Amino acid sequence: MNRPELKLKTRSWPVMSVVMLSGLVIGIVALAVATRFAGAQGMTADPDAERKQDLVTAYKILVNEGILDSFGHVSVRSAKDPNVFLMPRAMPPSLVAVDDIVELRVSDSQPIDPKGRRVNGERYIHGEIYKARPDVMSVIHSHSQAVIPLSLTPIKLKPVIVQAGFLPPESPTFEIRDAIKEGDRGMQVTDSARGAALARTLASYPVALMRGHGDVVVGSSIKQAVVYAAYVDIDARMQTQALLLSRDVVTMKQSELFTPAEFDINRPWENFKQKILDDAAKAKIDRAQFGLDQTQTEK
Amino acid sequence: MNRPELKLKTRSWPVMSVVMLSGLVIGIVALAVATRFAGAQGMTADPDAERKQDLVTAYKILVNEGILDSFGHVSVRSAKDPNVFLMPRAMPPSLVAVDDIVELRVSDSQPIDPKGRRVNGERYIHGEIYKARPDVMSVIHSHSQAVIPLSLTPIKLKPVIVQAGFLPPESPTFEIRDAIKEGDRGMQVTDSARGAALARTLASYPVALMRGHGDVVVGSSIKQAVVYAAYVDIDARMQTQALLLSRDVVTMKQSELFTPAEFDINRPWENFKQKILDDAAKAKIDRAQFGLDQTQTEK
Amino acid sequence: MNRPELKLKTRSWPVMSVVMLSGLVIGIVALAVATRFAGAQGMTADPDAERKQDLVTAYKILVNEGILDSFGHVSVRSAKDPNVFLMPRAMPPSLVAVDDIVELRVSDSQPIDPKGRRVNGERYIHGEIYKARPDVMSVIHSHSQAVIPLSLTPIKLKPVIVQAGFLPPESPTFEIRDAIKEGDRGMQVTDSARGAALARTLASYPVALMRGHGDVVVGSSIKQAVVYAAYVDIDARMQTQALLLSRDVVTMKQSELFTPAEFDINRPWENFKQKILDDAAKAKIDRAQFGLDQTQTEK
Amino acid sequence: MNRPELKLKTRSWPVMSVVMLSGLVIGIVALAVATRFAGAQGMTADPDAERKQDLVTAYKILVNEGILDSFGHVSVRSAKDPNVFLMPRAMPPSLVAVDDIVELRVSDSQPIDPKGRRVNGERYIHGEIYKARPDVMSVIHSHSQAVIPLSLTPIKLKPVIVQAGFLPPESPTFEIRDAIKEGDRGMQVTDSARGAALARTLASYPVALMRGHGDVVVGSSIKQAVVYAAYVDIDARMQTQALLLSRDVVTMKQSELFTPAEFDINRPWENFKQKILDDAAKAKIDRAQFGLDQTQTEK
Repeated sequence: MNRPELKLKTRSWPVMSVVMLSGLVIGIVALAVATRFAGAQGMTADPDAERKQDLVTAYKILVNEGILDSFGHVSVRSAKDPNVFLMPRAMPPSLVAVDDIVELRVSDSQPIDPKGRRVNGERYIHGEIYKARPDVMSVIHSHSQAVIPLSLTPIKLKPVIVQAGFLPPESPTFEIRDAIKEGDRGMQVTDSARGAALARTLASYPVALMRGHGDVVVGSSIKQAVVYAAYVDIDARMQTQALLLSRDVVTMKQSELFTPAEFDINRPWENFKQKILDDAAKAKIDRAQFGLDQTQTEK
Repeated sequence: MNRPELKLKTRSWPVMSVVMLSGLVIGIVALAVATRFAGAQGMTADPDAERKQDLVTAYKILVNEGILDSFGHVSVRSAKDPNVFLMPRAMPPSLVAVDDIVELRVSDSQPIDPKGRRVNGERYIHGEIYKARPDVMSVIHSHSQAVIPLSLTPIKLKPVIVQAGFLPPESPTFEIRDAIKEGDRGMQVTDSARGAALARTLASYPVALMRGHGDVVVGSSIKQAVVYAAYVDIDARMQTQALLLSRDVVTMKQSELFTPAEFDINRPWENFKQKILDDAAKAKIDRAQFGLDQTQTEK
Repeated sequence: MNRPELKLKTRSWPVMSVVMLSGLVIGIVALAVATRFAGAQGMTADPDAERKQDLVTAYKILVNEGILDSFGHVSVRSAKDPNVFLMPRAMPPSLVAVDDIVELRVSDSQPIDPKGRRVNGERYIHGEIYKARPDVMSVIHSHSQAVIPLSLTPIKLKPVIVQAGFLPPESPTFEIRDAIKEGDRGMQVTDSARGAALARTLASYPVALMRGHGDVVVGSSIKQAVVYAAYVDIDARMQTQALLLSRDVVTMKQSELFTPAEFDINRPWENFKQKILDDAAKAKIDRAQFGLDQTQTEK
Repeated sequence: MNRPELKLKTRSWPVMSVVMLSGLVIGIVALAVATRFAGAQGMTADPDAERKQDLVTAYKILVNEGILDSFGHVSVRSAKDPNVFLMPRAMPPSLVAVDDIVELRVSDSQPIDPKGRRVNGERYIHGEIYKARPDVMSVIHSHSQAVIPLSLTPIKLKPVIVQAGFLPPESPTFEIRDAIKEGDRGMQVTDSARGAALARTLASYPVALMRGHGDVVVGSSIKQAVVYAAYVDIDARMQTQALLLSRDVVTMKQSELFTPAEFDINRPWENFKQKILDDAAKAKIDRAQFGLDQTQTEK
């Protein structure tokens, strides 16, 4: 049996060299093309791809934790351009997918290219906060039933539980009546002037309650905003229940509050995330990849 | 083997023409019949088919949202005849299907043809409201545990949350003791006189609480009634909790209330609907068909 | 081919008659035996078979409705002998099956034949109530968290919701301290004397709260006891919440209370039952067999 | 073919005896080795294997009962060495598996061999309690929302429900401000000094509330600690709700409290366990093995 390829003689080397070099060049080009193509599909091409994915995860978590109802919305500032933010079109929170996310301008809260999709009527909450707060990367507006009772009274939200140490000693409540002209209608934040007034009430705080409406929670990342929103809810419920029991409620003092670096947001984020998995998905968790080892930094 | 039909000669054209024309006519007639038949199966034939389907959906949503318990009922006015309304026979709300829906007369709340099915003892709530309120297309009577505590006290339901702007500054509470003779037994609305008294208390409002019983919520469509019922519940809970915290509870003022056109009921309706889907059904949602783009009208 | 059986001659008739008659007799006997055997397997043989099945259903419903926790128990009087009652051995309510049911004597609450199974330490609650109340066919003892807060205060359970019309204007609360000697230990009803004291507090009522412990609810059937227990819970929660809101809480007056015949317990029973079905079972509901047509009697 | 071994002659007996005896010895040694190896795989080899498994079960139960949130942790003292305790690394409670469990020293709460895994920042709670309380075999630290409202007020947790008879007439609340120097930051128990202060507040009690933080519950086994934690929660909720209703709340007196031997913890433990099973697993419960017959000891 002949195996021709093994019968190459020394005189065929020059030909061979050309063939092999050509193959090498073709291989390199193909690799480059493939890499570029893969990149275009992956995260290198769209700097916002990861943020969009986190935004969808945030919606799922906040729906599951009972913070987002039929309304409520979450946004993230673009990684490409700080003058742009990303937010789903007007739709029920529980249905949000990456394709629903629209780019809007910080300057006027208008969509850059809505592609026929209707954008959210209260997007001015987000735009005006991004404008006023360069440190804010994510904004959550919820109709949380944990904070509304407090918002209807003169009582201010105060930090009472250990995980709410990111709160100031007292959080502001936005009264839209103070921001609009007598006779102006509605309680929703449906234009830039109302959004700017809310941003002024929020000032440099992480949260502002909105009377009869809910709250707005901001963070330096989607993850931080989501974890803050969850603990604002628990804190509000604990403060409310304690106030019903006693007039002597201990609130946290300055030395008990913490800086963002002192609060491990990764653990609740991972916990919330696994709660939205179904049983099949839970069984497949790659624990090593789950970031669990990075969840606790010691003081 | 001879296949005669393939042996047609040119001289047989006249015959052929007749055959073909006959075939064409038969085809057209058949198509017309089939279309008509299909129509009879579909919505053109029964103008109430869509309302019946929405009524079943309303039951599923209201059970899932915890508004309908073992009792409670929903009805819709017929699209065929405003003097007729549709309502399921007496049965647990969670089991209602299209076949359970019975036609009743507005005039006396009696079934037109019950086909041996027992009708609901409190159908007079529905009949008398349809009689008094030509604008009402759907009536919900629930034993909502969110409104009962308020109904037991002199405190009136007031709008406190932004989505409850369809409420008047104060909603009435029906006290059946004021409507019946001393000594008359029972608290249920089991005859026309009691139903008419409830309708008088409801007056032109969208909701009336019923002392120790629940409430009645009406709308210009099933969808509106369902969404109103859901937000009555949340509003009642928020008002209740705020009242426990403080005597200074801010309620919405006239300019904060809205007209039906200003409240986007489609978004909560779609949100409630997808919450009753199982996981398999959710995966199959045809998002384009989901009406999501019509959910938000800007001011 | 010969077929011998068809070649019988007339002279063989006498023989035939004997054979046929014998066969008939054997057939009749066999039928009788078979019927008797089938009966022994079915409900005619064990008059308590249906009650045992209902008892298991009652456990499932009461666990699902949040009325039975890790403890709590339900019993039914035997259909065979009013001096016997049926109750599961000591075990978590969520796991009860027909095989766990033990027969106990009403006279001393002792098991007739425990077959090595440990019986419940608080079975005296049941035995003593069956002794004092010939009208009672089923007893539920729960640690319901809906009634415990009221039981810890001087406030009595009162009927406030329409479905609680089976309650008296005021239900008694059992204070075990009044029933035992100073220094006797424990709050549980672990002997006949304590059981008898509880039965005296219950008197002719359908429910007695037990201070810091829960309640006991009785009925003329398992179904009635289960439905009463469910509405005791809702009534207690509504009364509690109303009392937090106002000192002016309207409770039901005599003419608003009802007799058992006026309360359709079938509808909530069927509703509770379908809530414990899984989705597969729900799809198979034979609606015609579901007793839905018997659920509402008009006044 | 020759098979030499079958050709043994009688004169070879002495040789045979040696061979057979050798074989016997080898067999015995092999059996011993095999047994020892099997032992090493089973529970005899790792005395802590069962405790680790129970620890994982405890996490699943406490997550399911709503006692452990994103934070919170459970530990058990080692069966091998009372100076060692076992506790999962820093991670969300819902994800804990046997492999996550790390051994720590009671003396300084430091890991013996973390194998690169980050340990929990509040492990000092556990270490210092094991140091101060030789009777304690398991420690639970939770952020239970049932106890936090009470912990924020001057009101002490008191036993009010029958199953909370393991509680003292009044449980202590740990105020970390009393344990640290003015100006020291944070409310978490992140060093031995804070842990020791908490252990002093706990003293010989089964539970200490932690102001604005949650509680610590200890037991003579994992099972006891878990059941105690569950009933601390229910007791706190019942006490809270009763206090909102009335100033006259009956708390349990000394003769109503019980010793551990008087409280059957097996029944709630089994009940909690079956609640974490999925439907498939429930169908396979080997009821005979479920320990149900041992769940109730009569007085």
